[in-house]
Amino acid sequence: MIPYQLIAKKRDGGELTPAEIEQLITAYLRGEFTEEQMAAFLMAVYLRGMSTTETAALTRAMTMSGDIWNLSPIPEPKIDKHSTGGVGDKVSLVLAPWVAACGVVVPMMSGRGLGHTGGTLDKLAAIPGFRTSLTKRRVISQLKKIGVTMLAATENIAPADRRMYALRDATGTVESIPLITASILSKKLAAGANGFVFDVKYGSGAFMPEIKRAKLLAESLVKSARKSGKKAVAVLTAMDQPTGCAAGNACEIHEAIECLRSRKPDDLYRITRALAVEMIVLSGLVRSRQVAARQLERVIDNGAALEKLCRMIDAQGGDSRVVDDPRRLPQAKFNRFVLAPRTGYIQRIDTRRVGWALVELGVGRKKPDDDIDLTAGLLLSKKIGDRVKKGEPVGKIMGRRRRTFAVVAGEVTASLTIGAQKIKLLKLIHSRFDGRKWVPQTIS
Amino acid sequence: MIPYQLIAKKRDGGELTPAEIEQLITAYLRGEFTEEQMAAFLMAVYLRGMSTTETAALTRAMTMSGDIWNLSPIPEPKIDKHSTGGVGDKVSLVLAPWVAACGVVVPMMSGRGLGHTGGTLDKLAAIPGFRTSLTKRRVISQLKKIGVTMLAATENIAPADRRMYALRDATGTVESIPLITASILSKKLAAGANGFVFDVKYGSGAFMPEIKRAKLLAESLVKSARKSGKKAVAVLTAMDQPTGCAAGNACEIHEAIECLRSRKPDDLYRITRALAVEMIVLSGLVRSRQVAARQLERVIDNGAALEKLCRMIDAQGGDSRVVDDPRRLPQAKFNRFVLAPRTGYIQRIDTRRVGWALVELGVGRKKPDDDIDLTAGLLLSKKIGDRVKKGEPVGKIMGRRRRTFAVVAGEVTASLTIGAQKIKLLKLIHSRFDGRKWVPQTIS
Repeated sequence: MIPYQLIAKKRDGGELTPAEIEQLITAYLRGEFTEEQMAAFLMAVYLRGMSTTETAALTRAMTMSGDIWNLSPIPEPKIDKHSTGGVGDKVSLVLAPWVAACGVVVPMMSGRGLGHTGGTLDKLAAIPGFRTSLTKRRVISQLKKIGVTMLAATENIAPADRRMYALRDATGTVESIPLITASILSKKLAAGANGFVFDVKYGSGAFMPEIKRAKLLAESLVKSARKSGKKAVAVLTAMDQPTGCAAGNACEIHEAIECLRSRKPDDLYRITRALAVEMIVLSGLVRSRQVAARQLERVIDNGAALEKLCRMIDAQGGDSRVVDDPRRLPQAKFNRFVLAPRTGYIQRIDTRRVGWALVELGVGRKKPDDDIDLTAGLLLSKKIGDRVKKGEPVGKIMGRRRRTFAVVAGEVTASLTIGAQKIKLLKLIHSRFDGRKWVPQTIS
Repeated sequence: MIPYQLIAKKRDGGELTPAEIEQLITAYLRGEFTEEQMAAFLMAVYLRGMSTTETAALTRAMTMSGDIWNLSPIPEPKIDKHSTGGVGDKVSLVLAPWVAACGVVVPMMSGRGLGHTGGTLDKLAAIPGFRTSLTKRRVISQLKKIGVTMLAATENIAPADRRMYALRDATGTVESIPLITASILSKKLAAGANGFVFDVKYGSGAFMPEIKRAKLLAESLVKSARKSGKKAVAVLTAMDQPTGCAAGNACEIHEAIECLRSRKPDDLYRITRALAVEMIVLSGLVRSRQVAARQLERVIDNGAALEKLCRMIDAQGGDSRVVDDPRRLPQAKFNRFVLAPRTGYIQRIDTRRVGWALVELGVGRKKPDDDIDLTAGLLLSKKIGDRVKKGEPVGKIMGRRRRTFAVVAGEVTASLTIGAQKIKLLKLIHSRFDGRKWVPQTIS
C-alpha cells in the first residue's frame, strides 16, 4: 500500500474500500503512515466526506486497534447510550439505573469532560469512593447481579481514536460528521454492547447547534452502527439551555438522584424517559413504547430505580448514603448569586458561553490534564420563558475558586437574552431516527 | 495567533490576510505550528485554493525564511527564466548565454532533477570542472563582467519551501497551483532577479499535461510575481515529446552547444528563441519583439552567443574546450538501439513514461539522494509525425547501466503510439500571458 495514493484518492473525492481503510489505520498504528499523512488525510475527509460504508469501515478499523470487551457471558441484550453532550447533561446518571431497574442490561462507558461540555466520569467522581475502573471479571459479575455498570473507557479501548482525536484537535478537523461518528462508535463497539441509543443534542449548547447538522450526525451514527451489525436509534433533544437546574459535578449527582425520586426537574425527567423508552424497546424486552413508559413509571413509584442506583454505587465501592443524604457529596465553600441585569422574559441562553464560564469556575477542563473542582457549579433558578425582575437572582454559582466568581457571574449574565416577549421553547424531544426515517416524538 | 483558527479559516474557504500568512510561516519555522498542522493546512489549501493576494503573501513569507541575494550592485535589470520542466528540456543551457550575449544580465538559478523531469543542475555537472556554487562576491563580479551565471539554489534559499515541499510530497498536496506557485516563486524572488519569464509546459511530459491547468499555473505565476513587484510573463510551450533529440545529461549539453552553433534541433531553437525574446523585452533593452529576434539571430551568426557560453564555463571553473570538442564530455560505455515495433507514423509519445524510463537508466532520481549517471541518455532519431518501418531504429539508449537497457528500451517502445495516419503536432509555442491576457504567439 502506498499511503500517498490513499490520501490522493480521498482528496479527489473517491470512495476508499474497507480494505484500504483497514490498511491505512494498520499502517498508522505501525508508524508507517505518519502523523503528517494522517493530518492531511483527516483534512481531506473533513472536506470530501465519507460514505456510510467508509465510515463503518473506519469505525471498525479503529475499534480493532485495541481491546474489545467480550460481554457474551451475559446472554441478555446489552444496551448503552451515548450523548453528544452539553451543559448540565446528567441524563446518564438517571438513565442507567432506571433502565436497569426495568430489566435491561446497561454496560455504560463514559468519558471525561473537555471544553464547554461536561463528562459523566467527572460527575461520578463526586460520589465518595466510587470507582469507574473495574476488572473485566468484576464487570461481568456486576452486570449479571445488578444489570448496570458505569465505567471509564480504558486506555486500551480504541487507542487509534485517542491519537486521531489529538491530531484532529490540533489540525481543525474535529467537526467532521464521519470522523465524529467513527470516534464515538469505535469506543462504543469496543465496549461490547449490542445496541445503542444516541442522544443527539441541538441548540445553543450542543456540539452541533444547528438542527440540520445534528440530524446528519444522528443519521451517520445510526447508519454506521447498523452497518456494524448493532441495533441503533437516535433521539434529537434540545440543548438550548442547561438540562435541569444544576450544571457542575457534585450538584448534578444531587439533581440526578432527586429526579429518580421526584421526577423533577421536568426537562431532565422527560429527556431521560424518552431515551429510556428507546433503550427498552431496543433491548426487545417489550415491543410497545407505551408499555415501556408504564414500566418506567412503575419503577420510579416503587423505588426500584433508586434502589438500583444504590446497589450500583455500592458495587462500585461508592458511598450509597449520598442517595438519602446529599450532604455527603462534596460541598462548595463559597457561593454567589447571579442577578438579572434587567426586567423581562428570558428569551435565550447562550449555553455554550455558560459552559465555557463553568470551565473557568473549575467544572471542566480546557486541556486534558487540567484540575477540576468537584464542588463547582451553577444552580439556575430561572430558565427560558421565565419572567425576571432586574436585580433578582437568576441563579447561584459555587465552588472553591472565589477569585473567578466575578468573571463567571458576568459571563452567565451576559449569556442571557432578556426581552419583553415571552418566547417559544425549542421542542425538548424533537424526533427520533430509526435507521430509515425521522419520526416525530409522540410520548413525552 | 492560534494556529487552529488559521487552519479552520482556510478549511472553511476563507481568505487569509497577508499578516496571518506571515504569522503562520513564522510559527512554522519556529516549530510552533507543527508539521501535522502544516499538513492539514496544505490539504485545506489544496482543496480550497488561494487568491493571488494569499499566494503572493505565502511566496513572500517563504522567501523571507532564508537568505535573499541582493544583486543591486548590478544596476541593469536582471532577468531569470523558470521552466515547469519536462524531458529533454535543455532550454536554459541555450537561453542563458544567448540572452546574455544580447546584453541582458541573467542570474540563473537552477535545481536538480526529481522524478520524470530532468534538472539543469545535473546537466551542468556533465561539464568537467563546472562549479554551480560560488561566493556572492564572485557571482556579482561574474555578472558584471560576463552578464550570466548558472548556479544551484543554495540550502539557505527559501528553506521553508524545502520543508514544505517534503511534506507536500508525503501528503498528496504537490499538485496545487498556489502551492506550486509559492514554491517556485519564493526561490526565484530570493535569488534577486527583477523579472521572470516562465516557460510553462503542456502535453504528455509536462508537470501539468492539460492545457487548462497549465494556463492556470502560468497565470498564477505571473500574477503572483507581479503582486510581488516583479516583471513577469509566461509562455506556454509544448512538452508532448522530448524537446530536441537528446534526453540525458552529457548528451543534452552537447545538443545545447550544437543549437547555439547551428540552430538545430528546430524545436529547441524555436522554444528558446521565443523565451529569449520575452527576456530581452522584459529587460527593457528593446521594445519590439522583432528587434529582439533580429538581435538574437545576429549573436548566433557572429558567434557571440557561443563565445558567451565559453566565457561562462571558464569563469565557473569548467572546461570550455567541450564547446568545440564534445568528446571531452563524459562518454557512455554502452549503447543499444530502440527499434520501431511496427510500421506507420509516430502519432503520440507518452513523454512522462519516457522520463520515468530514463530515471531507471540513471538520468534522474526517484529519491533526492539517488546516484545518477551523467553519460546515460536517449537520442531520438524519430519524433511525432515521422514515418517509421517496423524494426528500424527510432532512437538509441546509452549509459553505464547495461542491465537496465532491455527494460528501458521496452518502455521507450511502449511509449510510442504508431498508426496509419500522420497526426498534427501540438502547437510548439502556444501563447503567452502578460499579466492581463493571453496573446497567441506570432513570432516563431
